[in-house]
Amino acid sequence: MAADLTAHDLIAQHRPTLDKALETIRTRAYWSPHPEHPKAYGDTEGRPSLSMPEGKAAFDALLGTRVDLGQPGTDDFVGGEVSPYGIELGITYPHADVDTLLPAMRAGMRAWREAGAEVRAVVCLEILARIGARTHEFAHAVMHTSGQAFMMAFQAGGPHAQDRGLEAVAYAYVEQVRTPDTAEWSKPQGKRDPLVLAKEFTPVGRGVALLIGCNTFPTWNGYPGLFASLATGNPVLVKPHPRAVLPLALTVQVAREVLAEAGFDPNLVALAAERPGEGIAKTLAVRPEIKIIDYTGSTAFGDWLETHARQAQVYTEKAGVNTVVIDSTDRYQGMLSNLAFSLSLYSGQMCTTPQNLLIPREGITTDEGPKSYDEVVADLAQAVSGLLGDDARANALLGALVNPDVKARLDAAAGLGEVALPTREISNPDFPDAVVRTPVMVKLDGAKPDAEAAYMSECFGPVSFAVAVDSTQDAVELLRRTVREKGAMTVGAYTTSEEVAQAVEEVCLEECAQLSLNLTGGVYVNQTAAFSDFHGSGGNPAANAALCDGAFVANRFRVVEVRRETV
Amino acid sequence: MAADLTAHDLIAQHRPTLDKALETIRTRAYWSPHPEHPKAYGDTEGRPSLSMPEGKAAFDALLGTRVDLGQPGTDDFVGGEVSPYGIELGITYPHADVDTLLPAMRAGMRAWREAGAEVRAVVCLEILARIGARTHEFAHAVMHTSGQAFMMAFQAGGPHAQDRGLEAVAYAYVEQVRTPDTAEWSKPQGKRDPLVLAKEFTPVGRGVALLIGCNTFPTWNGYPGLFASLATGNPVLVKPHPRAVLPLALTVQVAREVLAEAGFDPNLVALAAERPGEGIAKTLAVRPEIKIIDYTGSTAFGDWLETHARQAQVYTEKAGVNTVVIDSTDRYQGMLSNLAFSLSLYSGQMCTTPQNLLIPREGITTDEGPKSYDEVVADLAQAVSGLLGDDARANALLGALVNPDVKARLDAAAGLGEVALPTREISNPDFPDAVVRTPVMVKLDGAKPDAEAAYMSECFGPVSFAVAVDSTQDAVELLRRTVREKGAMTVGAYTTSEEVAQAVEEVCLEECAQLSLNLTGGVYVNQTAAFSDFHGSGGNPAANAALCDGAFVANRFRVVEVRRETV
Repeated sequence: MAADLTAHDLIAQHRPTLDKALETIRTRAYWSPHPEHPKAYGDTEGRPSLSMPEGKAAFDALLGTRVDLGQPGTDDFVGGEVSPYGIELGITYPHADVDTLLPAMRAGMRAWREAGAEVRAVVCLEILARIGARTHEFAHAVMHTSGQAFMMAFQAGGPHAQDRGLEAVAYAYVEQVRTPDTAEWSKPQGKRDPLVLAKEFTPVGRGVALLIGCNTFPTWNGYPGLFASLATGNPVLVKPHPRAVLPLALTVQVAREVLAEAGFDPNLVALAAERPGEGIAKTLAVRPEIKIIDYTGSTAFGDWLETHARQAQVYTEKAGVNTVVIDSTDRYQGMLSNLAFSLSLYSGQMCTTPQNLLIPREGITTDEGPKSYDEVVADLAQAVSGLLGDDARANALLGALVNPDVKARLDAAAGLGEVALPTREISNPDFPDAVVRTPVMVKLDGAKPDAEAAYMSECFGPVSFAVAVDSTQDAVELLRRTVREKGAMTVGAYTTSEEVAQAVEEVCLEECAQLSLNLTGGVYVNQTAAFSDFHGSGGNPAANAALCDGAFVANRFRVVEVRRETV
Repeated sequence: MAADLTAHDLIAQHRPTLDKALETIRTRAYWSPHPEHPKAYGDTEGRPSLSMPEGKAAFDALLGTRVDLGQPGTDDFVGGEVSPYGIELGITYPHADVDTLLPAMRAGMRAWREAGAEVRAVVCLEILARIGARTHEFAHAVMHTSGQAFMMAFQAGGPHAQDRGLEAVAYAYVEQVRTPDTAEWSKPQGKRDPLVLAKEFTPVGRGVALLIGCNTFPTWNGYPGLFASLATGNPVLVKPHPRAVLPLALTVQVAREVLAEAGFDPNLVALAAERPGEGIAKTLAVRPEIKIIDYTGSTAFGDWLETHARQAQVYTEKAGVNTVVIDSTDRYQGMLSNLAFSLSLYSGQMCTTPQNLLIPREGITTDEGPKSYDEVVADLAQAVSGLLGDDARANALLGALVNPDVKARLDAAAGLGEVALPTREISNPDFPDAVVRTPVMVKLDGAKPDAEAAYMSECFGPVSFAVAVDSTQDAVELLRRTVREKGAMTVGAYTTSEEVAQAVEEVCLEECAQLSLNLTGGVYVNQTAAFSDFHGSGGNPAANAALCDGAFVANRFRVVEVRRETV
């Protein structure tokens, strides 16, 4: 490699981080190399990084500009992002002639393959490190495309997304080195000479990978697929959501810069922005060059991809109906505040936010005595109201509604049943045009068919249903049916009964859903930590893959063997 | 477990074998715990096993009987196998009412899941060990269903198949224990108490796995999927090829016996035999209970499964067009004898047998001087004739044609071009009704479109094409096109040029095919060794999976996490 970044230096710098990631995916203990406190950035020790004001300035400087990535086959510059906070970004991005771009992306595959798994891993880690240094810039990019509040955009879009990317690199690396580069095979033949073969094993990428980004978590949901594919030898074409281009365009920019400096073809990573309504994902997804697809978004398009993109390995995260079973608790206030936070964070616009709260109509037992269904619902509504009573705090938690569809669902939800918690409009002094609304909670009778139509569908956004069920046993059966038929990214349960806990666990084991039990403190059902928690299970209709495990990386490459006689 | 076989004893007995298998899939060195010499069996030391005569007697005793596996939902007994050697087996097997059988198979899943990865692995190893003890019986079962000659049926159907089963168990085990059973996660919170969660991780099977067996290698091609699915917690329904039921019925019998003795539900493994022409594979494959499918057979049905069985993970080995590039050699006689053996073994009825021999029309250089295209073809034809000149030896190598379709293709091949090696009928004194024919070799001009129609299709059976190409470079390009468009289980090449070797290697790396270079001794391109060689690549149209790697096992189960606050 005649390059500014030598393999040697990259390995020296990043191998310890890779090793720690490899260790942590085995222990599942807590670890992250990416600080989640804003003030940890801007330091001049170690790798320079943008401080909070520098990140803001970098973002402001991007507004109204053209992000020219120098990609082959660029036939136009397009863009039209409008921040959920009301400002027009005015940024344009390269529009690709894919007949030119896709072959150009394949050109660098051989050198990328020949670099080997370790060099690919440390190049990926260098990309992540440079993204990490610009975390404050990415925070604004994520905030003004997803509508997340700043702190969440900073953490989930920055260090947590980088964690998930690093986790994918670690899985990809260890999967590729399970088979040695070479082996001598010597089979005894009794008194005759043994049969001897020299064997070489090479992990080879499948072809161009397509990342179809989402609106709400462009980096967090995008990095696992992007880095898993790149680390296993595949070029990656990034097709961002038209409303959330910037965070992924910056990611592509950094990746291209690092690849070039390390002596590789920068076209191994490229962006495909689109014109409004162009819908290029459908066209790209069935191109013969596309061998891998990662997608986060609607069930309808995820199913379409799984059905039609038959030439590719397709990894999808789709919609689900997340459920919390409320049977009993010995920390009633903790339960209420924990759930209130879960329902409020980013206005319920997380694929992991609970939707259905299943509460026995006879009520539950708590450390504050028995509570009727109505009391539990009222107390929970009050907990949400209390949490969001202060507008500044509400803005910091809720962010903005990501698009008009969410607001329409929110408005329609009030018609679905008795409103236990009405929505409230919050004004945002910094961004007067932002649409900020507190969550709505609707009471439904689990036994009524018209109610079932509501609670058995995903209602993405700040809407939850307090579903009255006949008993905890009824709740457990409804949980089973919901996960089986609709899928779930998360399941929660509150119970002091070991028997109930076991029944809920058994449903989650049989229907393949990730369960959080009795969360009453500072961990929320909608949050997962890289290296330790799996995001989704890959075994129910909400997603066909989990972030991140062996199955997420193992089929992104194949091992080619060359064997020869040793004379 | 209140069982005859305790987990403790099974672990004590089989853990060393599992550990050795785990080590070998990492080193890819030679190893097998299953003796491949017939005389190694029948010993009374260690585990008793059937001797050669005992195995024959056991097989003979099966003829004309009913194999009653005691399965729920058995509504009939069916069968109609006729040995390619001419004898009617007269054995009947349970026909299943799947509406009864499938739910019964799911009933044992919970206990099987709760047993954990290690116990599942050693139960699988006990099944393999009991099959191993009956290897001589299985040899006849494989011989009289596949048409393989005895020695091949013994080795490939016995120890080599058992190796592939064990390999799958090893991969399945290690994949499941990558994530620990439990973890404590403690995230620092500055001066506040850390956030602490206790986490449990459980590998859970996906559901009932369907193994669709093949006619030619019922055990060798069946065991990887069967044991990979069972070891990862899934019940396995075995749907054998109607002409090759017995080897898999015996396998199911042993599996059920071991499962019951170990205290598990024997219905975790069951057989689905069918009436002639019933075609139950299509019905079973799309049942909602079926979550995994392993299939070996035609491209048409493999593609059908991949397209229609959308509720399942589908692993297919289909047809390909295997190619050998002949550029030059410094061991001409070794090359000829090696290729002659490859073309003759089991009458070319292996998915790995070479079909197209690409030879420059200007000829090749050898240690015996330059050889023209015609000379190479004539010498190779003579090598085959010499190898098969003695009828006893011919019978021992060729076996019998597995079905009338193969014979029809063989007969038709003579019309495709100039016959360089005509087929010859061989009589088998032991089995006068066996159809035994030596391979045919046909000369084709690679540049002619009508020839292309022949050599660009799989002609399964003892037919090879000596394709005249313009140059080695032309051969390499034709190799690339063949693998890309038709797929290949194997690629061979003979060359003394490092440059040509690299060009062929590069094609195999880019098109994802397994390459054997310059084989002139006792290893053949159509043979792969478990624990060391991959069978297929999973990256070209011949197969979507390789035997055996991480991707073959990783998506047969999911990991469910239960996390809770530690108060």
